[in-house]
Amino acid sequence: MPRLRVHCFAISVDGYGAGPNQDLDNPLGAGGEALHEWVVVTRTFRQLFGQEGGTTGVDDDFAAKGFADIGAWILGRNMFGPVRGPWPDDTWKGWWGDNPPYHGPVFVLTHHPRASIAMDGGTTFHFVTDGIEAALERAAEAAGNRDIRLGGGAAAIRQYLSAGLIDEMHIAISPVLLGAGEHLFAGIDLPSLGYRCAEHVATEAATHIVIARQPG
Amino acid sequence: MPRLRVHCFAISVDGYGAGPNQDLDNPLGAGGEALHEWVVVTRTFRQLFGQEGGTTGVDDDFAAKGFADIGAWILGRNMFGPVRGPWPDDTWKGWWGDNPPYHGPVFVLTHHPRASIAMDGGTTFHFVTDGIEAALERAAEAAGNRDIRLGGGAAAIRQYLSAGLIDEMHIAISPVLLGAGEHLFAGIDLPSLGYRCAEHVATEAATHIVIARQPG
Repeated sequence: MPRLRVHCFAISVDGYGAGPNQDLDNPLGAGGEALHEWVVVTRTFRQLFGQEGGTTGVDDDFAAKGFADIGAWILGRNMFGPVRGPWPDDTWKGWWGDNPPYHGPVFVLTHHPRASIAMDGGTTFHFVTDGIEAALERAAEAAGNRDIRLGGGAAAIRQYLSAGLIDEMHIAISPVLLGAGEHLFAGIDLPSLGYRCAEHVATEAATHIVIARQPG
Repeated sequence: MPRLRVHCFAISVDGYGAGPNQDLDNPLGAGGEALHEWVVVTRTFRQLFGQEGGTTGVDDDFAAKGFADIGAWILGRNMFGPVRGPWPDDTWKGWWGDNPPYHGPVFVLTHHPRASIAMDGGTTFHFVTDGIEAALERAAEAAGNRDIRLGGGAAAIRQYLSAGLIDEMHIAISPVLLGAGEHLFAGIDLPSLGYRCAEHVATEAATHIVIARQPG
């Protein structure tokens, strides 16, 4: 059975996974870019977008683990784009251009049906309208013997976490304050859901925490 | 003018400054002890309670800074003790025995009047019933040219923070999940209050964050 994994999800010191007022100009919400400063400089991230160079070490190792053994992705709708409500047309195809960095099946959670879109580089976006468990089932089928990565955003992670469906979650606490936006953990009692802090390591740029379900 | 400083206030990865259900057996709430593992092993902390040895290095440096140039303390009532409502008698004198680790004037926030108590080692507990600003004024007078340390707990810090009265705050994020309890930052928009993350450094045991008011 494929595991559902979260990687490289960055939160602020005050717990926000994105800033407020997400829109076309601020896909991560106001101030949200600062959450990701630790990862955009890594070799893994730069390679993902066809760039050379980048840092190696702990931050890069965490970035790279997020792509190891992944057979399918799940994304929340807000992570796919700023469009709200019914899809007005087929224009919007994600934030990432013609060749998105997924290179496999991606299941997008939405309340509004839309035909699948095949992109360059092997990425296909599928739109799932019947809930998070249906999306997980479809992603599991597509992933085969590999795992599923839940890419975000905060709202999608909160739903899967509250349902106890995430097997492992790597978060990076970035040394910034956002003050408002989408809080990742508010109201979710992780120990009661069986989660514990399984690993932690810090660098100059971020504190990496791996949260996993308690064995047994 | 003395500055109001918070030091060594530990929170969990999910943002709680104390566990739920604080009582005589669990002064830090259920699971709350784990928040403080980083500090109880330091040389500074051990010396405070008359013990020898202890670790030196970054964690200890942060612990020691919390005692430098402090002329008075402010504590919330729950940090002073588990007694709620009017004081039934003068029996309760804090969690710390006859010789508390403050060695100076300590202003305890409470709604219920009580006579001051002089303890061994120079600590005197004063009980302030007319609010956080009155407590700060009295502590500032007592501190003279030195600073005031706000010891906690979370509720007292939240009040001073929301009023923009804290000048500098060192928090330690411990690698544990609490799931419930007293959340430190919920609903407080720190950047709007003028705060920013001024310093961060992590060790094996904790991620240290210094939050300060933006200059100007």
